[in-house]
Amino acid sequence: MKENMNVAVMNGIGKMGFITRPVPTPSKGEVLIKIDYVGICGSDIHYYETGRIGNYVVEPPFVLGHEAAGEVVALGEGVTNLSVGDRVALEPGKTCGHCRYCREGKYNLCPDVVFFATPPVDGVFQEYATHPADLCFRLPENVSNLEGALIEPLAIGFHAANQGGARAGQKAVVFGAGCIGLVCMMALKAEGVSEIIVVDVMAKRLEKAMTLGATATINAAEEDTVERIKELTGGEGIDLSIETAGTEITTRQAIEVARKGSTIVLVGYSKTGELTLPISLFIDKELTFRSVFRYRHIYPMAIEAVAKGRVNLKDIATHIFGLSEIQEAMDRSVSDKANIVKAAVRIDQ
Amino acid sequence: MKENMNVAVMNGIGKMGFITRPVPTPSKGEVLIKIDYVGICGSDIHYYETGRIGNYVVEPPFVLGHEAAGEVVALGEGVTNLSVGDRVALEPGKTCGHCRYCREGKYNLCPDVVFFATPPVDGVFQEYATHPADLCFRLPENVSNLEGALIEPLAIGFHAANQGGARAGQKAVVFGAGCIGLVCMMALKAEGVSEIIVVDVMAKRLEKAMTLGATATINAAEEDTVERIKELTGGEGIDLSIETAGTEITTRQAIEVARKGSTIVLVGYSKTGELTLPISLFIDKELTFRSVFRYRHIYPMAIEAVAKGRVNLKDIATHIFGLSEIQEAMDRSVSDKANIVKAAVRIDQ
Amino acid sequence: MKENMNVAVMNGIGKMGFITRPVPTPSKGEVLIKIDYVGICGSDIHYYETGRIGNYVVEPPFVLGHEAAGEVVALGEGVTNLSVGDRVALEPGKTCGHCRYCREGKYNLCPDVVFFATPPVDGVFQEYATHPADLCFRLPENVSNLEGALIEPLAIGFHAANQGGARAGQKAVVFGAGCIGLVCMMALKAEGVSEIIVVDVMAKRLEKAMTLGATATINAAEEDTVERIKELTGGEGIDLSIETAGTEITTRQAIEVARKGSTIVLVGYSKTGELTLPISLFIDKELTFRSVFRYRHIYPMAIEAVAKGRVNLKDIATHIFGLSEIQEAMDRSVSDKANIVKAAVRIDQ
Amino acid sequence: MKENMNVAVMNGIGKMGFITRPVPTPSKGEVLIKIDYVGICGSDIHYYETGRIGNYVVEPPFVLGHEAAGEVVALGEGVTNLSVGDRVALEPGKTCGHCRYCREGKYNLCPDVVFFATPPVDGVFQEYATHPADLCFRLPENVSNLEGALIEPLAIGFHAANQGGARAGQKAVVFGAGCIGLVCMMALKAEGVSEIIVVDVMAKRLEKAMTLGATATINAAEEDTVERIKELTGGEGIDLSIETAGTEITTRQAIEVARKGSTIVLVGYSKTGELTLPISLFIDKELTFRSVFRYRHIYPMAIEAVAKGRVNLKDIATHIFGLSEIQEAMDRSVSDKANIVKAAVRIDQ
Repeated sequence: MKENMNVAVMNGIGKMGFITRPVPTPSKGEVLIKIDYVGICGSDIHYYETGRIGNYVVEPPFVLGHEAAGEVVALGEGVTNLSVGDRVALEPGKTCGHCRYCREGKYNLCPDVVFFATPPVDGVFQEYATHPADLCFRLPENVSNLEGALIEPLAIGFHAANQGGARAGQKAVVFGAGCIGLVCMMALKAEGVSEIIVVDVMAKRLEKAMTLGATATINAAEEDTVERIKELTGGEGIDLSIETAGTEITTRQAIEVARKGSTIVLVGYSKTGELTLPISLFIDKELTFRSVFRYRHIYPMAIEAVAKGRVNLKDIATHIFGLSEIQEAMDRSVSDKANIVKAAVRIDQ
Repeated sequence: MKENMNVAVMNGIGKMGFITRPVPTPSKGEVLIKIDYVGICGSDIHYYETGRIGNYVVEPPFVLGHEAAGEVVALGEGVTNLSVGDRVALEPGKTCGHCRYCREGKYNLCPDVVFFATPPVDGVFQEYATHPADLCFRLPENVSNLEGALIEPLAIGFHAANQGGARAGQKAVVFGAGCIGLVCMMALKAEGVSEIIVVDVMAKRLEKAMTLGATATINAAEEDTVERIKELTGGEGIDLSIETAGTEITTRQAIEVARKGSTIVLVGYSKTGELTLPISLFIDKELTFRSVFRYRHIYPMAIEAVAKGRVNLKDIATHIFGLSEIQEAMDRSVSDKANIVKAAVRIDQ
Repeated sequence: MKENMNVAVMNGIGKMGFITRPVPTPSKGEVLIKIDYVGICGSDIHYYETGRIGNYVVEPPFVLGHEAAGEVVALGEGVTNLSVGDRVALEPGKTCGHCRYCREGKYNLCPDVVFFATPPVDGVFQEYATHPADLCFRLPENVSNLEGALIEPLAIGFHAANQGGARAGQKAVVFGAGCIGLVCMMALKAEGVSEIIVVDVMAKRLEKAMTLGATATINAAEEDTVERIKELTGGEGIDLSIETAGTEITTRQAIEVARKGSTIVLVGYSKTGELTLPISLFIDKELTFRSVFRYRHIYPMAIEAVAKGRVNLKDIATHIFGLSEIQEAMDRSVSDKANIVKAAVRIDQ
Repeated sequence: MKENMNVAVMNGIGKMGFITRPVPTPSKGEVLIKIDYVGICGSDIHYYETGRIGNYVVEPPFVLGHEAAGEVVALGEGVTNLSVGDRVALEPGKTCGHCRYCREGKYNLCPDVVFFATPPVDGVFQEYATHPADLCFRLPENVSNLEGALIEPLAIGFHAANQGGARAGQKAVVFGAGCIGLVCMMALKAEGVSEIIVVDVMAKRLEKAMTLGATATINAAEEDTVERIKELTGGEGIDLSIETAGTEITTRQAIEVARKGSTIVLVGYSKTGELTLPISLFIDKELTFRSVFRYRHIYPMAIEAVAKGRVNLKDIATHIFGLSEIQEAMDRSVSDKANIVKAAVRIDQ
C-alpha cells in the first residue's frame, strides 16, 4: 500500500486543485477503500459555484464528492461482513445509531449525521477513503463500480418512490428529467409502476427519459402539461406525482393533475425556498404531500434492482472524466447542464 | 303522521323564511326521521352570507342544514337494521357505492355524492326527512339528539386525527379553536393523544379549549407561538399538527414547529385558496401534509366515543335556537363568532 | 342476436351435459357479453369431483365457470363506460355496495356477494352472460380474451402480493407451483420483487416456474427445503412467503425460513382445514400471517400488468378445450393435475 | 457512594441467596442508578422454577430481574440528557444500533441484544446498576419508582396494541387476565379502544380487570366464551383480539369470534410451543396474526400515558417485598399465581 494519496480539492469558488494526504488507516469497524468512481452531484456543483448551501459554508481546501464506489483494500478490527477485494458502494452518511430518529429507523433524519462533502466534513474525490463496513455494500459481479457510485442518486429515486407509496397499476408523472427525475422514473418502474409520464422543457432530456423507460413525455415548453396529462390518463388524473424540478409552476401542475386522494412527492428545492400553492384545491382533493431528505434502507435493494436489470443505471452517466481532469469536470458540469445528465470522475486511472 | 311539515328556507342572502312541504315518504331502504336537532355549520353560514361556495350557488328557496339527528318514525321497504322509535344521527352524504372511490373505501371522494345543503340538494332545517337506513346510526341511551346532531362536525375531527395518524404518546398542536379546531382536539384526545396545545387569538375560545381538554393553550395575539411551542415541547417540536384556521401564518408556524419526519393535517380553507409556504424547509424536515375532505367510516366510532365519555361533545354547543328563531340563529351565527362556538336549532319543539 | 344459447351444465358428480337457455337481457347498468374463454378453476374441479365445497352444495343442473372474458354485444340502460364491441374481463363477484365491508373498501368480504359458480348462483360455461358494467374491465388490444379470462386467477396472485406488502428488494418464496402458486410468483415479480424461490414436488411445475420467471426452484421431494433456502439467502432468510400448497409441512417451513419480523401469506386450503404449527417460534420471530380471500381492486392493475408485458399470463394456460369438449376438459383437469397448470374452455368456436 | 452493594442471586432451582459485589462505575454514555423497585416477571419465575427458558440456561450464581426503576446517582462521560437525582425507568435491552433490524427501527429483533436477566447476562435484583443513558427514561413527578419499574410489562401491552393497529371505535377482546393480559387491556384503553372484553377462568383476575377498566368480562370456566362474545358484540364479532393465555382453546376462540378482515395479536407462549388451529377458517375470514417479541419505541409514550392518568399502572402491583425477602417473593410468585397479579421487590429500604 502506498503511503500518500492524491486528493482533489476545491480551493475557492470555481477553483479546483490537488493536494497530497496520507492514505488513512481504518479504525475498528471500518474498511479502507480504493475509490474507483465518484459521481458529481448537484450539491457538489452548487458548492463549487457559490461556496455554500444554506448554513453549510465551504472552507478551502475542501474535498467534494459523495457518490462513490471502489474496492476494499484493508479491513479494520472486527470487520467480518467484507473481505479484501470486495467491490463496494459507499452509503455516505454516518449516523449516531441511538437518537430517536435512528432508533425509529428514520436514520436519514439523525441530527448528528456525518455526511461526505457536507462542510466541514470532506468528501471523497481522492484515491482512498475509510468508511464503516456497515455502510459499504458489496457489488455483485454484474454491477460495475461506475454503477456502484451511482447507487447514491438512485437511492433518492427509490426513497421518493417509497415515500409516495409506489405500486403496480398506478399512473405516475415525474416533473423534471434531470438526473434526479430520471432516477425517480427508473425507481418507479422497478417498483412495478408501468405508466410513467415525464415532463421537462429540454427535448434532449426527454429523449433520455424515453430511452430509460418512460411511457410518455411532455415538453412543457411546447405543450400544455395539464391538458396533455388529462388526455394521457383518459381524464382520470395521476395517482402519484414526483416533483423534482423545484418550481412553482410544476408543483401547481402536480396538484391540478392529481386524482382525488392521491400523493405528490416533493423532491426538488426551489430557488427561494418558498412556493405559492393552491392549498384549498389541495384540501378539496384530499391530497397528500410527502417529501424526501436523502434516503434510508435503500442501498441493498437498489444494488439488487441494478443487478437484476430492472434499472438501467449506467446509461444516466453521460460523461466520464479522469481525476486529473477534475477542473474541467466541474466546469463542464456547470456550463453544460443541457447535455450532462450525470458526470462521474474515474479516480483509479 | 301529519301530512305537511314546516321547512325553514333561505330566501336570499341574509333572508330566512318558512314554507310548507309534504312530509316525504321513505323509499326502499330509507327511513323517515322526525328531526330533533340540526347544527348550524360554517358552510351554512357561508351560503347565508354570500349565496355560494365555489361553484355551488344557492337558488332560493333553499334548505340549509346538514348536521342532524332525530327519531325514526317510519321504515321504507326492506329496512331491517332500524326500528321505529330509534334515535339516530344522520350521515349526510349519499354516495354511489360503485365508483372507484367508493369501491376503494374512500367514499367521501365519490364524485356523485348527494350531500344535504349543498346546492341544488336541500338540507334538513325542517321537521322530517327521509334518508337511507344505512346512513342513519342509532344513538345509545346516554347520547342525546343534540349530541347526535353534532356527530357530524366531530366526524371531521376524527377524520383529521386519522389522516394524521394520531396515536398515544404524540405531542400535538391544533391551530384554531373554533368548532372544528375543538372537535379535532377532542378527537385527538379520544385517540390517546394526551398532550395537545391549542392556538388561537381569542381568549374565550382558548378557555373553551382548556375546559374541553387541551393541555395548554397559546394566545397568538399575545405570545410568540413558535417560541412557546418550543418551550412546551422541551425543544423537540410537534409530532402532529392540525391546521384549522386556514391562514398562511398558522400553516407556516405548523411547518416551523414540526419535528422532522412528522405530519401536518390541513383542514381549514384560506380566504383566497392560496398560501405561500416554505416548501424547502418542508422538504428538509421530510414533512408530510395530509388533508381532509369531509370524513369516512367515522359515525359509529364517534358515537361510541361520546357514549363512553371520551369526548365532551355537548359542551361545544353554546347556543340553541328554536326552528321559529331561525333568522336570529343565522344572524347571530354571522355576527357573534367570538362567542358562538356552535349553534344548533331545535326542530322538535 | 340469437334467442337461445348453449349452456354446459354439471348434471351430477363427474357428469357434464348441455342445456339450452334463452340469451339473457341486460338490466339497468348491465351489459350482455358474448363469452369467449372461461378458465377452469380448482373450485370448479372440486364441485365436479365432490358436489360441494363446505356448505355450498351443487343442485344439478348447475353451471360452473367464473373466469371469463368476451365481447360486449348489448348495453343495458344507463351504461356509459363501455361500448358494443369492447372486449372485457369479468370480475365475477357482485357485492352490495353498502355494508360495512363494502364501505370500507374490503368488498371481497361482503357477506351478500353474488359470485359466479358458487351454489346456488350459476357460472358462465355458456355462450352469453349479463354482468354489471362496473365489473367488466376493458381489455387493450394486446391482451387477448384468453388472457382476459385468466385475469381472475392472476387477481388472487396480486392480492396475495399486496396482502404480503410485496416490494422491490425482498427475497420471496412461493410454496406450491400450481396455477395459484405461479400467478403469485408472477405478481410478486410485477410488483418489483426480483428474487423469488418456488418450491414444489413436481419437476414439471418447477420447470414451468423457471420459464415464467422464478429465480430459483426447490424440488422438495429431492432437497431439504429449509437448508436450501438458507443457502440461497446467504443465511438471512426470507422476507415474504406465500403459501399456496395448503400443507402443514410447507406452512411450517415458511415459519422456519422467515426472517424475523417478516410476513407469510396463507392462500392454500388444507384438506382438513386444520394445521399444527410452531406458534411459539412464530412469536419469537415476531412474524405476521396474512391471508387471502379472493381479491379486491385488482382487475385494472392486473390487466395493465399483462398489457405492459410484466406478467406472462398466456403461458400458464397449458390446455384449451372447446365448449363441446367440456366433459373431457373437466375429466382431464381431474386426472392429469401433473401436466395441466391451467385449462380453459373456448366458448366461441 | 459506598463501594460494595448487596446482590440477590439465584443459586439454583428454587434457591435464592445474596452476594456482595462492587458498585459498578458508569462507562462513557452510561449512568449509575440506585435501583428502587424491580418487578418480578414471568420469565424470572420460569428461570427460578426450571433453570432455563429454551436455550437460555441459568449458571448460578445468576441475577434475575429486568423491570427496574431508580435514581441516577452518577453520570458517565458524555451524558447530557440526564442529571444526578433524576428518577428513571430502565429499558432493559441494549441493542447494537447498526444491524439491519436496528437500522430499520425494529431494534427489539436485534440478534446481538444484551438483555437484563437473560443468561448469561445478569439482571438487576441489586442495589446499583449501570445502564446506557439513552435507555434510561426520566419519570415525571407524578410517576412513582414502582410505576417506573412496571413500565416494562406495560411496554409489552402497548407494543401488542400497536402491532394490532388498535384504534378508537374497535371492539376488542383480551384472552387472559394475568399481568400481561391486564397491561394489554390498559394499553388498548389508552389508545382509545373503549370496548374491551377480558376472558379468563379465575374470578379474582376478572374482578381486577373490571377494576382496571375492562368493559365486560367472561369467566370461561362458567360461560361459553364464543356465544357470550357474539351477544356482547351484537353478532358483529371482534375487531381486535390479543391472546395472552397461550392456549389452543383461546387461540381458536380468537379465530371464531373475529370479524372478517380483522387482526389477532399473539402474545402468550404455549406449553409445547405448538398449536393446532383452524387455518382454513382463518383464510376464509381473511384474518391477520401479528405477534409480539418484547417491544420497541414504547418507554416515553408509556410513561406519559401513566403520567396523564390514562393507565392505572400502580394497581397491578398486588404484592411488594423487600430485597431481604427475595426468597419469599420468588416462592410466593410461584405458589400463589391466583392472587399475585404482579409482585415487585423494593430494593432501597
